[in-house]
Amino acid sequence: MSRMLILGEAELRRIVALDRSAVDAVEGAFAALATKAVAMPPIMRIDIPEHRGEVDVKSAYVPGLGSFAIKVSPGFFDNPKIGLPSLNGLMILFSAHTGLVEALFLDNGYLTDVRTAAAGAVAAKHLARPDARVAAILGAGVQARLQLEALTLVRPIAEARIWARDAEKARETAAAMADKLGVAATAVADPKSAVSGADVIVTTTPAEAPILKADWLRPGQHVTAMGSDAEHKNEIDPAVFGRATYVADSLKQTRRLGELHHAIAAGVVADDATFAELGAVVAGLGPGRQSEDEITLCDLTGTGVQDTAIAILAHRRAVEADAGMAFDTTTRTGADA
Amino acid sequence: MSRMLILGEAELRRIVALDRSAVDAVEGAFAALATKAVAMPPIMRIDIPEHRGEVDVKSAYVPGLGSFAIKVSPGFFDNPKIGLPSLNGLMILFSAHTGLVEALFLDNGYLTDVRTAAAGAVAAKHLARPDARVAAILGAGVQARLQLEALTLVRPIAEARIWARDAEKARETAAAMADKLGVAATAVADPKSAVSGADVIVTTTPAEAPILKADWLRPGQHVTAMGSDAEHKNEIDPAVFGRATYVADSLKQTRRLGELHHAIAAGVVADDATFAELGAVVAGLGPGRQSEDEITLCDLTGTGVQDTAIAILAHRRAVEADAGMAFDTTTRTGADA
Repeated sequence: MSRMLILGEAELRRIVALDRSAVDAVEGAFAALATKAVAMPPIMRIDIPEHRGEVDVKSAYVPGLGSFAIKVSPGFFDNPKIGLPSLNGLMILFSAHTGLVEALFLDNGYLTDVRTAAAGAVAAKHLARPDARVAAILGAGVQARLQLEALTLVRPIAEARIWARDAEKARETAAAMADKLGVAATAVADPKSAVSGADVIVTTTPAEAPILKADWLRPGQHVTAMGSDAEHKNEIDPAVFGRATYVADSLKQTRRLGELHHAIAAGVVADDATFAELGAVVAGLGPGRQSEDEITLCDLTGTGVQDTAIAILAHRRAVEADAGMAFDTTTRTGADA
Repeated sequence: MSRMLILGEAELRRIVALDRSAVDAVEGAFAALATKAVAMPPIMRIDIPEHRGEVDVKSAYVPGLGSFAIKVSPGFFDNPKIGLPSLNGLMILFSAHTGLVEALFLDNGYLTDVRTAAAGAVAAKHLARPDARVAAILGAGVQARLQLEALTLVRPIAEARIWARDAEKARETAAAMADKLGVAATAVADPKSAVSGADVIVTTTPAEAPILKADWLRPGQHVTAMGSDAEHKNEIDPAVFGRATYVADSLKQTRRLGELHHAIAAGVVADDATFAELGAVVAGLGPGRQSEDEITLCDLTGTGVQDTAIAILAHRRAVEADAGMAFDTTTRTGADA
């Protein structure tokens, strides 16, 4: 008899948090991506134009890890009209030894939120100046909050400036973050003043035209851009590539989906230009920050290894906490095979 | 609040059978493939060489159907050493309107068995002579049994010859089928005598070199080849292409995986030769059998639309039978969005 665990969003929120364990898990996954024969197939995409729906399926197997995840992320953009969120999703964890299902996480995207923010922490840990204390966050959604929280796990952040197109939302986010993290968080009126004097800048918006200009940047700053996960999204002025040391989560992806894609399209970067990947930096195989004055830019589009890492963490926590519902997955009898 | 249903293999075997409803569902799916803007992305494949594992992910959305399935099929070929089956798997059904999960079927491949056999019935229904009464089945595994059963749903099959490399297994299969279906089923010593005088021939083996020779075939026979679902598998002598009218389940797939792939490699068929697909034949858009004397060959590699069709049927049956376990998939509150 085999059994799997099934956990819903509420239970997952109880046992998995954006904390050092999550950051360590995702950091390890990036290192594996640079050092092991990771199997990370291209994203499968199913379009359902009749209902403004799109579904992405991601997966990655990391040699040495005992399990691998498959993640399904539906986005249905008419859902809000009927009172449902646009995004939901789930992850399935399989044994890498037998292929049997170990767990189903009906997380509605929560685990993705955590692993995405954790990647921001990994980027800042390896690329921001160690003494970074001022953060600028562009955007005021779920990731704006989580990315700021992620920074506080790896750098001595004491001050945060939040800018968003919706000023009211920026104020709410600043107030909530000041309360939760105990940092001096304030909403600012324009992105330029958010960036001015910041040590770390994180862009978390769905912008389709640059919101961060190259000439706002000053020596020593680090930028993490995590809003661009599709061809048409673009937060970073291509001219930033002329000033900053660029690091991709996955070059194959950022060439197609990330900020790099727009810099290539703008003619600022050559098609075949090569750059370090975050995993190589983590593993000490690629150059991270070389000096106090360097400007660094990390382009995060999201990778399957992060999903596998967070799903394994969630499974371990569920077993430890005796959480979730067990389901018997009796294997076929083979009686008539 | 949203809820999904979870069903295991035993329960699915109780509510979904290889019957006319399953054949109708799969027939409709093939027709849709020919007539609608079906979204059927390439198969996602994850290889886990350390444990002789491979995982296929398939999906298809059929416009007009209210749901779509994603199927995950792991094969781990060292499993038998530890008393586990090599193959297992699951299907997830999503609403095509909202992207919300409707059902999880932990079927260990059972629904795939049913939809694969149902495709054999669809092929015979549209390509075998209406009076076909003698079936030859090459192979004696699960699909050998199901394919024979499928034929009895659409043709007046009265006699069956079973051949397999393992003669004992062929005898067991013949006895079991005679008992279950009430047809005169016998094991035969060689594939040529199985084929001689048969009206419908179904090849269901994992052969990697042809087991059906072109010069054994006689006018009026229909052949369904369903064993080749990977590049290296091959059941049909390429010379059969010179004698038979060829129909593919999906030309894109059979050019890469099916018997067509081997005929092209052998130089018997041109790279860019085009043929009817089963869906077009079902929908009356492509030529099926044109005469009593024609030899027909249908090449089945398995398509995502069959998975979506059978998963929708399973869901309907589960709701009707009040079967399965319900799980609350509470959607994200958006409290901090």
